[in-house]
Amino acid sequence: MRNINEDTITAAVLESLADTPSPRLKEVMSALVRHLHDFAREVKLTEQEWMQGIEFLTATGQKCNDKRQEFILLSDTLGLSMLTVALNHSKSAQATEATVFGPFHVPGAPVLPLGSDIANGARGEPLFVDATVRGTDGEPVAGAVVDVWEADAEGLYDLQRTDLDHPEGRAVFHTDGEGRLHFKAVTPVAYPIPTDGPVGTMLEATRRHPWRPAHVHFIVQAPGYETLITHVFKDGDAYLDSDAVFGVRSSLIGDFRSHPAGVAPDGSAQPVPFHTLRFDFVLEPAAAG
Amino acid sequence: MRNINEDTITAAVLESLADTPSPRLKEVMSALVRHLHDFAREVKLTEQEWMQGIEFLTATGQKCNDKRQEFILLSDTLGLSMLTVALNHSKSAQATEATVFGPFHVPGAPVLPLGSDIANGARGEPLFVDATVRGTDGEPVAGAVVDVWEADAEGLYDLQRTDLDHPEGRAVFHTDGEGRLHFKAVTPVAYPIPTDGPVGTMLEATRRHPWRPAHVHFIVQAPGYETLITHVFKDGDAYLDSDAVFGVRSSLIGDFRSHPAGVAPDGSAQPVPFHTLRFDFVLEPAAAG
Ligand SMILES: [Fe+2]
Ligand SMILES: [Fe+2]
Repeated sequence: MRNINEDTITAAVLESLADTPSPRLKEVMSALVRHLHDFAREVKLTEQEWMQGIEFLTATGQKCNDKRQEFILLSDTLGLSMLTVALNHSKSAQATEATVFGPFHVPGAPVLPLGSDIANGARGEPLFVDATVRGTDGEPVAGAVVDVWEADAEGLYDLQRTDLDHPEGRAVFHTDGEGRLHFKAVTPVAYPIPTDGPVGTMLEATRRHPWRPAHVHFIVQAPGYETLITHVFKDGDAYLDSDAVFGVRSSLIGDFRSHPAGVAPDGSAQPVPFHTLRFDFVLEPAAAG
Repeated sequence: MRNINEDTITAAVLESLADTPSPRLKEVMSALVRHLHDFAREVKLTEQEWMQGIEFLTATGQKCNDKRQEFILLSDTLGLSMLTVALNHSKSAQATEATVFGPFHVPGAPVLPLGSDIANGARGEPLFVDATVRGTDGEPVAGAVVDVWEADAEGLYDLQRTDLDHPEGRAVFHTDGEGRLHFKAVTPVAYPIPTDGPVGTMLEATRRHPWRPAHVHFIVQAPGYETLITHVFKDGDAYLDSDAVFGVRSSLIGDFRSHPAGVAPDGSAQPVPFHTLRFDFVLEPAAAG
């Protein structure tokens, strides 16, 4: 320990973790140290680059507030979020796949009756969603709690608008006795993730675009089933093959249909063109515990 | 890119970096992504652990201000700082070794004449430092700029005291025509790194102590030589073999000598016991180019 050099330091740091009471914390911290050191050794990190890294991480933390989570954005854009999702949801082939949670969920969205419009003022082309929730055994799941959120026609979540004092584009529904769910929303559009922080600087420096293909977010929860956090992506979107956060799975591309102005599925007269979406969520039974 | 899973995502993220204009940035980012993903795959990171990581990094950034750099502290305690130093200073056997910079340097410390007392009010047992600066060829380096900083007898840097409006325990000197340097200071004591932030939480969870062996910080700069950032450690310190930031190198343990009250090296009468320190700094010639 008095002769630290590039070859001895990793063992010294691992040794310092020897008394960690939690075996899992010890495992995670030890692996983190090994991979972090291997990274620095592989690229022969310079002191200037190290300082740039310190400044980048500091700025990332300082960009966070109660409406902005820049570290989630960083994790998303480095593929770590989607990798973590994939590592934890190796489901049966029938179950709906999970994707990234993202930084725009807000707990406590209004609970609305089936058939409601979640826009609550958000602008956009009308979208009529008709969905079911079932188990992998095909049984409908009645009373499933479905949390929905989406951006508006300008690609902004309500969180990103400073002029709002009420939720827009988000709601919680409960499926009916047949596991069905229908509501009105706005047709999602592709949007850029926020680029006015350190993550935007990183994307610019690596010539990556910030766009995500159009999607609606869903969390589906029911007793006896694994919670599903996912999106339904809009088919035909130009960014399905280059999602800035690596979240696309082909099974999550939904069947969006375009309709001219006329009578909507809920019987209302729509004076403008609208879309419909049909999607069936399939939940994995909860792991025996 | 539409079928992201734990096996395909790393290649997808690396592919997204393909157009990075700077070859070095591309190399560093690509290695970072590979090692980050390998870490997550190796430990099969859970979503809860991922969120704890996001929260830890966010809190670390938010603990930083103009007097506190928690990310440097994190890098120091994970051994990344010392590894980076070691990777960049594989010097000749004769040159003084480098060690961690640490979070307590302040640019623009007062420039003082040789023989001055750097304490400026900081409490502690007197220390009389007598040092030389030479090149690896043995030639004295006249006019070298030597930036010195240290904690007080309570183990606190001036930065850590909220009641101070002036620098304490820091100064800049210039070596004389023979490359010599002498000044008065306080005898350093072992101190704990700040533990009231996320890094303290990490140390506690891993049952690591926060202590650093007693030391004085130095930056030595002169035209034609590599800048040296180092410490001189106090011999006999109880933490020389378990420095919380892995900074000890045996060549940096200085010859501190204890003296009873009496006449100090500068001819002054010292009513209390004091220490002296002799140390010779040896600078590497600047790399050509
Ligand atoms: Fe989104
Ligand atoms: Fe220090």
